[in-house]
Amino acid sequence: MRTIIGVMGGGETDAPTAELAYRVGALIAREGWVLLNGGRDAGVMDASARGARDEGGLTVGVLPDADTSRASAHIDIPLVTDLGYGRNYVNVLSSRVVVALPGKAGTLSEIALALSIKRKVVLVGFDPGPAFEQFHDEGLLVRADDPEHAIELIKAELGSDA
Amino acid sequence: MRTIIGVMGGGETDAPTAELAYRVGALIAREGWVLLNGGRDAGVMDASARGARDEGGLTVGVLPDADTSRASAHIDIPLVTDLGYGRNYVNVLSSRVVVALPGKAGTLSEIALALSIKRKVVLVGFDPGPAFEQFHDEGLLVRADDPEHAIELIKAELGSDA
Amino acid sequence: MRTIIGVMGGGETDAPTAELAYRVGALIAREGWVLLNGGRDAGVMDASARGARDEGGLTVGVLPDADTSRASAHIDIPLVTDLGYGRNYVNVLSSRVVVALPGKAGTLSEIALALSIKRKVVLVGFDPGPAFEQFHDEGLLVRADDPEHAIELIKAELGSDA
Amino acid sequence: MRTIIGVMGGGETDAPTAELAYRVGALIAREGWVLLNGGRDAGVMDASARGARDEGGLTVGVLPDADTSRASAHIDIPLVTDLGYGRNYVNVLSSRVVVALPGKAGTLSEIALALSIKRKVVLVGFDPGPAFEQFHDEGLLVRADDPEHAIELIKAELGSDA
Repeated sequence: MRTIIGVMGGGETDAPTAELAYRVGALIAREGWVLLNGGRDAGVMDASARGARDEGGLTVGVLPDADTSRASAHIDIPLVTDLGYGRNYVNVLSSRVVVALPGKAGTLSEIALALSIKRKVVLVGFDPGPAFEQFHDEGLLVRADDPEHAIELIKAELGSDA
Repeated sequence: MRTIIGVMGGGETDAPTAELAYRVGALIAREGWVLLNGGRDAGVMDASARGARDEGGLTVGVLPDADTSRASAHIDIPLVTDLGYGRNYVNVLSSRVVVALPGKAGTLSEIALALSIKRKVVLVGFDPGPAFEQFHDEGLLVRADDPEHAIELIKAELGSDA
Repeated sequence: MRTIIGVMGGGETDAPTAELAYRVGALIAREGWVLLNGGRDAGVMDASARGARDEGGLTVGVLPDADTSRASAHIDIPLVTDLGYGRNYVNVLSSRVVVALPGKAGTLSEIALALSIKRKVVLVGFDPGPAFEQFHDEGLLVRADDPEHAIELIKAELGSDA
Repeated sequence: MRTIIGVMGGGETDAPTAELAYRVGALIAREGWVLLNGGRDAGVMDASARGARDEGGLTVGVLPDADTSRASAHIDIPLVTDLGYGRNYVNVLSSRVVVALPGKAGTLSEIALALSIKRKVVLVGFDPGPAFEQFHDEGLLVRADDPEHAIELIKAELGSDA
């Protein structure tokens, strides 16, 4: 069974966030992990998949749609769910660790959903605010200074149940 | 078609929150609206359904489970989804307006999910924090001082597209 | 908790099937049961809901869509799932007994799904063929001669675990 | 984007069916296609994944569960959906062509679901009966004499929209 790392973040992004997502994706691939995201040809999804593919990684996209017409060209395995936002639950369940990049309500919802099923969330360049403070205290939500630091935090989590 | 008002909040609650949930449920029923929630025999779900039923209202519970064994006794129409947390998306889609009472990560996730599909959310006794500030500015997320005020805010929203 | 009876069948129907669906819906309402179906303004869904409503019954529609724009006017409680065909699983899980009227692949799929979770299926004017013969032998799949007979078969099933 | 071929069939199987599933999985891998199935460590799922892996193929399992505890050891990418039988819809949507091996109600349901969304279904050693005859006539449902023939039929289908 391959190790799957989820990457979430906004469907619309500025250039610095896309660059962050690209680097996160590339580093995940370099570790030999499978990158999983929401699969669309937009924002953090497209950029992180592109980063992973440029490093020869394998990318899985869990699409909200009923077909692949809006899938990123950098996705190897498109899962077609027709679940709409309901697919976010599949994303967090399927990910061993989740990396969260800047986004809006959809990203906040995914972070909260991940935490509610006790999935570790690594924040990169994003702060969901004090409502989530308790999860920092529990160690379930952690902040990475940059993509390299995020990888270290993921490794620590993977090692914790090795 | 009946008007459906969703009520969300923690599965574990203290007595003041249960009392708030009961009153919100009762007032929703008094308006003739259908109360929809997560259907379980716990916390805000059970208390709000009990309040609605005590006023002769109709209650719909969208259960995460594959059977009704954990349904609240105050639910008239149990929808059995076997969707786990994925059922939260059904809850917010099916509700004309959502009332959010105190809860933890699951409630935060539902609020964010509701906002991401542009469903109006009325907060009662709960503050999800600054990460949600933009939605206050957009008028999509509003604070009620008490259950009576929540009903006024719901009426205003229902009237807005009459 | 109200008793929920599911009605399934084709989204496109001829006049005799629509008439059958109307009568089944009316008789379900007369018994005081809640009618649940796929909720759309077409075929067996629309006709059975109309029948139930004409007898003062309560109707629940589990819509595949992300909004109510295609809901039948005879549905009281539209559940908006955005699950596509995935909503069929919610339909059979939520129904105490399922009545199946003539339909095509979608109806065959729902019948098989209902049987696979051990839900009793009452056929009215429809024969899914020998592939389903084993379920007749097990008593899980039964044939009704007409809507009145279907009601008798439902009553027998409801009584069996009273 | 990789070509994904779905394989469905019973969760409990006799030895000849398991052997058929193994050979189908092996031949799918030999073509360079990704094998997708229901992911569990049982029946056609386990045997087909084992066949694919023995040929160095990539295997995706769309699990009905909320964790991977019941996943086949031959699955590379376990998708954790917590959707129960609802995951069958994800399976057929995600597969370019579906191969159906012997099974019971669950398999009948998946075949009907695949056909209802116009996905080509190749039968190997299984006959769902006359209820499905119209789909043979439409060319959507085809019978393969053996696994090798199934591969030829899949190739023909893949070529048809090349």
